[in-house]
Amino acid sequence: MQPLSVTLGERSYPIHIGAGLLDDARLYAPLAGAGKVAVVSNATVAPLYLERVTRAIEQAGMPRPVSILVEDGEQAKSWASLDRVFDALLAARCGRDSAIVALGGGVVGDLAGFAAAVYQRGIPFIQVPTTLLAQVDSSVGGKTAINHARGKNMIGAFHQPLAVIADVGTLDTLPDRELRAGLAEVIKHGFILDQEFVAWLEANVARLLSRDRVALQHAVRRSCELKARVVAADERESGLRAILNFGHTFGHAIEAGMGYGQWLHGEAVASGMVIAAELSVRAGTLPRQEADRVKALLARAGLPVRAPALALDRYLELMQVDKKAAGGQVRFVLLEALGRAALRGDVDGRLVRESIAAAVQ
Amino acid sequence: MQPLSVTLGERSYPIHIGAGLLDDARLYAPLAGAGKVAVVSNATVAPLYLERVTRAIEQAGMPRPVSILVEDGEQAKSWASLDRVFDALLAARCGRDSAIVALGGGVVGDLAGFAAAVYQRGIPFIQVPTTLLAQVDSSVGGKTAINHARGKNMIGAFHQPLAVIADVGTLDTLPDRELRAGLAEVIKHGFILDQEFVAWLEANVARLLSRDRVALQHAVRRSCELKARVVAADERESGLRAILNFGHTFGHAIEAGMGYGQWLHGEAVASGMVIAAELSVRAGTLPRQEADRVKALLARAGLPVRAPALALDRYLELMQVDKKAAGGQVRFVLLEALGRAALRGDVDGRLVRESIAAAVQ
Repeated sequence: MQPLSVTLGERSYPIHIGAGLLDDARLYAPLAGAGKVAVVSNATVAPLYLERVTRAIEQAGMPRPVSILVEDGEQAKSWASLDRVFDALLAARCGRDSAIVALGGGVVGDLAGFAAAVYQRGIPFIQVPTTLLAQVDSSVGGKTAINHARGKNMIGAFHQPLAVIADVGTLDTLPDRELRAGLAEVIKHGFILDQEFVAWLEANVARLLSRDRVALQHAVRRSCELKARVVAADERESGLRAILNFGHTFGHAIEAGMGYGQWLHGEAVASGMVIAAELSVRAGTLPRQEADRVKALLARAGLPVRAPALALDRYLELMQVDKKAAGGQVRFVLLEALGRAALRGDVDGRLVRESIAAAVQ
Repeated sequence: MQPLSVTLGERSYPIHIGAGLLDDARLYAPLAGAGKVAVVSNATVAPLYLERVTRAIEQAGMPRPVSILVEDGEQAKSWASLDRVFDALLAARCGRDSAIVALGGGVVGDLAGFAAAVYQRGIPFIQVPTTLLAQVDSSVGGKTAINHARGKNMIGAFHQPLAVIADVGTLDTLPDRELRAGLAEVIKHGFILDQEFVAWLEANVARLLSRDRVALQHAVRRSCELKARVVAADERESGLRAILNFGHTFGHAIEAGMGYGQWLHGEAVASGMVIAAELSVRAGTLPRQEADRVKALLARAGLPVRAPALALDRYLELMQVDKKAAGGQVRFVLLEALGRAALRGDVDGRLVRESIAAAVQ
């Protein structure tokens, strides 16, 4: 199948989606010319796929890549992990002509992508996402970051990959909970951009949960198409791209408030989307019955639709430092319909508090 | 006087050079629209100039900026310092619409510039260099970085400032040793790009050392002009820009080998240029008498022209990890004449060792 394309001038790149792509040496061709290649992965993913990726890179005519393993889980998005990556790159004498392959989920992609963005002032990288979340969201669009004690993704860069290789075969080994968390972002793309896709998801959520490959491949492809279109229009999130953060201002507060790693990102975003839909109803932009559909679809996908019982003030405090805050004023992505979103900087704080309170109950 | 311009399409910016510019509110106009401004400086520079810069920013119609002080010296180019900057930015609730002003020498500029490059995936900044080194070199061209235990400037980004405000009045308070270290980069620009400027420097080095303002202003302006031309032609150092590293492969080895902060950057580069000129002679690209002029001018500027007596193997080891190494092969900038440089990847290792040995004696 033809790859999708993220159209960004000289930074354009293909997204390959299919089963069994990990082994396809041709897809690693953009690495040609790199002096050294380092594959960054973790102890969960490496035993499953590292050897296959390593072999494919060698078959593509590259020298055998260096492997660098980082911790598993959100805590790996730290300076300490990043510094271990730098240390391994320097120990292996990787120069400015090196390249990185990020093999794993969103954490590995964000961390390895940021390492590539700043190692010796920037080297190229390829994303090989192995979770649904990474395939439909974090591997596409060039956002890379690590966390800071005061907030998630506070330190990062826009650094587009050379290519994304999304092998849906890797989803076979994904724990159920992570599969569901990935579906949260798939569903989000429908909510903000594509009413028909929402209807398709409502009809096919059971197939997705049972890992029907045809359904998964369609869901990944449609999600990437929708996201790629937004990224192409607004690479550095000066406007439109912010709608991809639907549910995320609340979601990040939930992740931070519960302690990173307690709730998966997709779970927190699911819960955050329920709050954001509630806020859309209360702000008068979305009919109640549409918000009910938001909640119902997320619930059928096995995602949390009730927000955790943090104190209201704690929610507000955590949202203030969220990086989407512009000049201290928190902006919210509201739904105007299923399939249409808008960014609003003028939302009444009282409505925000009421919406959180309603979602906690 | 008309500002110089660094011509980089939509990332173009002015370099203002003159006496008393710190107070000129008009020069801070590019900050307009920023929600918050943070001035990053250190305990040496802040007592001298922070209040003047703060007042000028306020006069430009901005809210009073936050001040963030970092350590003095090369050790400030560390993750620990960087994290303190992030912490202060987050504590002050600086959002993605904030901007940074780097007030100080090369260390402050490199650190604050890198902070701007990656804070919330990138915010704009202005360089206000207060040392000769920073005015003629590090503030121009968008290179930002911190050091890694295994090498200098290993972690960084290309992030162009909105403007550079070089007030030669600030050089009045610069220690003699730092003035001389700055002259090393001024002289370097002559050696690699402008034979006439070398002749001017040979005639005017005494005026520069006695801080004649007219002479200093000319030296800063000509240096920035030469550097800006190279940067405009090759922003991300894929080719030509590497000639700016004349003397730096050896210089970085000296800095690292002696322990950062023992030799000033400009001192190490001066000594490195003597080695590089010696190598040029031995590689057959430069007449011996021209290399003698290199050494003589640096000596008259009060700079070290003898390399420190590190073991030869230590030099070679430190040079290998220098980021200019491409695929393990160290590339050298050689002089073909005073005013003309070339990048060479095929230099015989024996000649390198002989040149270092000759410069150590």
